[in-house]
Amino acid sequence: MFEAKVDANVLRECIESITAIVDEGKLKIAEDGLKLRAVDPANVAMVSFELQSDAFDEFRFVAKEPGAESEAEATTESRAETEIGIDFVKLLGILGIGGREEVELELDEHAQKLFTRMGSLAYTISLLDPSSLRKEPKVPELEFPVQVIIETEEFRRTIRAAEKIGDHIVLGVDGEVFYMEAEGEMDKLRLGLRKEQLIHLTPGTLHSLYSLDYISAMSKGMSHAENITLNLGKDYPLQIEFEVAEGKGKVSYLLAPRIESE
Amino acid sequence: MFEAKVDANVLRECIESITAIVDEGKLKIAEDGLKLRAVDPANVAMVSFELQSDAFDEFRFVAKEPGAESEAEATTESRAETEIGIDFVKLLGILGIGGREEVELELDEHAQKLFTRMGSLAYTISLLDPSSLRKEPKVPELEFPVQVIIETEEFRRTIRAAEKIGDHIVLGVDGEVFYMEAEGEMDKLRLGLRKEQLIHLTPGTLHSLYSLDYISAMSKGMSHAENITLNLGKDYPLQIEFEVAEGKGKVSYLLAPRIESE
Amino acid sequence: MFEAKVDANVLRECIESITAIVDEGKLKIAEDGLKLRAVDPANVAMVSFELQSDAFDEFRFVAKEPGAESEAEATTESRAETEIGIDFVKLLGILGIGGREEVELELDEHAQKLFTRMGSLAYTISLLDPSSLRKEPKVPELEFPVQVIIETEEFRRTIRAAEKIGDHIVLGVDGEVFYMEAEGEMDKLRLGLRKEQLIHLTPGTLHSLYSLDYISAMSKGMSHAENITLNLGKDYPLQIEFEVAEGKGKVSYLLAPRIESE
Repeated sequence: MFEAKVDANVLRECIESITAIVDEGKLKIAEDGLKLRAVDPANVAMVSFELQSDAFDEFRFVAKEPGAESEAEATTESRAETEIGIDFVKLLGILGIGGREEVELELDEHAQKLFTRMGSLAYTISLLDPSSLRKEPKVPELEFPVQVIIETEEFRRTIRAAEKIGDHIVLGVDGEVFYMEAEGEMDKLRLGLRKEQLIHLTPGTLHSLYSLDYISAMSKGMSHAENITLNLGKDYPLQIEFEVAEGKGKVSYLLAPRIESE
Repeated sequence: MFEAKVDANVLRECIESITAIVDEGKLKIAEDGLKLRAVDPANVAMVSFELQSDAFDEFRFVAKEPGAESEAEATTESRAETEIGIDFVKLLGILGIGGREEVELELDEHAQKLFTRMGSLAYTISLLDPSSLRKEPKVPELEFPVQVIIETEEFRRTIRAAEKIGDHIVLGVDGEVFYMEAEGEMDKLRLGLRKEQLIHLTPGTLHSLYSLDYISAMSKGMSHAENITLNLGKDYPLQIEFEVAEGKGKVSYLLAPRIESE
Repeated sequence: MFEAKVDANVLRECIESITAIVDEGKLKIAEDGLKLRAVDPANVAMVSFELQSDAFDEFRFVAKEPGAESEAEATTESRAETEIGIDFVKLLGILGIGGREEVELELDEHAQKLFTRMGSLAYTISLLDPSSLRKEPKVPELEFPVQVIIETEEFRRTIRAAEKIGDHIVLGVDGEVFYMEAEGEMDKLRLGLRKEQLIHLTPGTLHSLYSLDYISAMSKGMSHAENITLNLGKDYPLQIEFEVAEGKGKVSYLLAPRIESE
């Protein structure tokens, strides 16, 4: 049994952070909140999402009785959460209509439906069969030598400018400077920020190349966060972390690097 | 002879209520104001439009002298109005440019032209030959068992949400609740409003199915009205009535129902 | 050596006045400012652009030493300016991102690159080879019998309305009235302004026909100017002059007339 009430803007912000990477996915509901981990169809980008139950105005989750359906193998542990398959893009479209009201959610696990109520408008979405969705990816073990914390708007503005130049972007650190660089046939864009212009910087000398398409999508997903944390390495995956729901939720993107052709 | 001055916004609001159904039509001009009745090319939707002469800042109409052109058959009665064919979409496009100024209209019946003046900008539109336009439809005799008066914005918002779900919408009354329902392959949307959430409701139990395309178009035509009146029956046409020009004009849409396939 | 700082809005306004006619062109840099003259690919429209050095917050230009590269033929006179080839559309796209900040420009003539800095964002654009660009056009010797000064917004609004009617527009003077006229198959638009509704008018009786496409483009390029000066003749080119950069820059468009087919 799952029933909850949440501010429409909080829910929208959360779903937008997910749809930046995947259209649909398996959402885990437990007593302490929601969780999702999903990888994009091309296996290049991953999103890990967590939202605490106290981000909701109301949140009630009761795990199914063990043994009600299956047998003794099911430990109490494994029964303490429910997994549902959701078309997040569809849900987002409907939230866009509902305005700034509170949203009520109610799960009908038996019928595999999620009821959504915004004021006098009720929207019922059929859940997707979790077995038809991609398996939850394993998070690779990574160690990032460098961490940069930057204002989201500075990052997003640079990404928008880079989109006009080319298809790739370099993120790197050179001493006490964090930089982002995009190069086209005729032109080149570079953002350079010294340590004191950033919220945090681990000095170092390294950089990696990434596909701009993915970072552009991520850049939309993070638009409500004030700051983002970039975890970087040399020719290494990029991890972007930020908070949603006024700190009661966490999003982490992971993006594989591109091999530099030169 | 027809000459008039009218607020550009009032004229725009009126024409938008017409272009929701038809691009062009026959407008009747008489001493007491303007009238139009037209049916869409597919014969599914009808618009009836009336605008009183006192919605205008100035309004002068003098019927042609009987016998000036034709013979004795023309009774004074039938001469007391003039019918002109207008491309409303074209007129609306030009009004969009003119800003919020007053619009002067002047009919040259002999040359079959309508002069439109907005400040120092004059726009002359050739009239359409009324005989080339579809005949004015007969309004069917209808009796509606149920009447609902609802805030326009609530209705329009639901229509916008329904557009994301499917192609049809059910409008109905269930006891003291008015509802609108759209169903897609995977999801379902329902607005339910109790009597006290509406301006008026005749209790009952009935519903009809309509094509969403038409209601979406109508929903644009009513955007300036605060409330709309829905007249409903069981598998019956839908009538939507609302006021324009601060109550000095009336619009009525009529829409044929769709047969439910189940 | 060329280095300058300029308000981003001033630079944007200037470049927009150029891109109304050409995408790329040869910009001349001298001690007293910038100059450009270019003709559109179809040879129908020309733009002459001048921006004084005092429109910049900082402006430093030092001409190359004569003889440093070439021989004695180069007079000091001809060395006192530098010509660079710029893709203005690309530059404008990047300025759109930078926001309202100050822009720093720095020319690397040797590498044929222009460095642009907006806050911490640096954008390097490769210059175009001036010899690959069209020759600077000669300005024909023209005498305009009639001059009209009009509020830009009145002119632009009429152009937007005319776009809905047809492909051409007549600009003319009839006694003490300036008029603009566009005619479609079914309709006709006319702006008529008496001398007292204009800032200036030379009375006369003449008109010319122009392609609306070009005037529409010019109309975008002049959007920041309060007034424009129209220089007119009978079946004669149109010259439109206006100021940019708060009077510290001047733009002049020249447009060939169309032959009236009737």
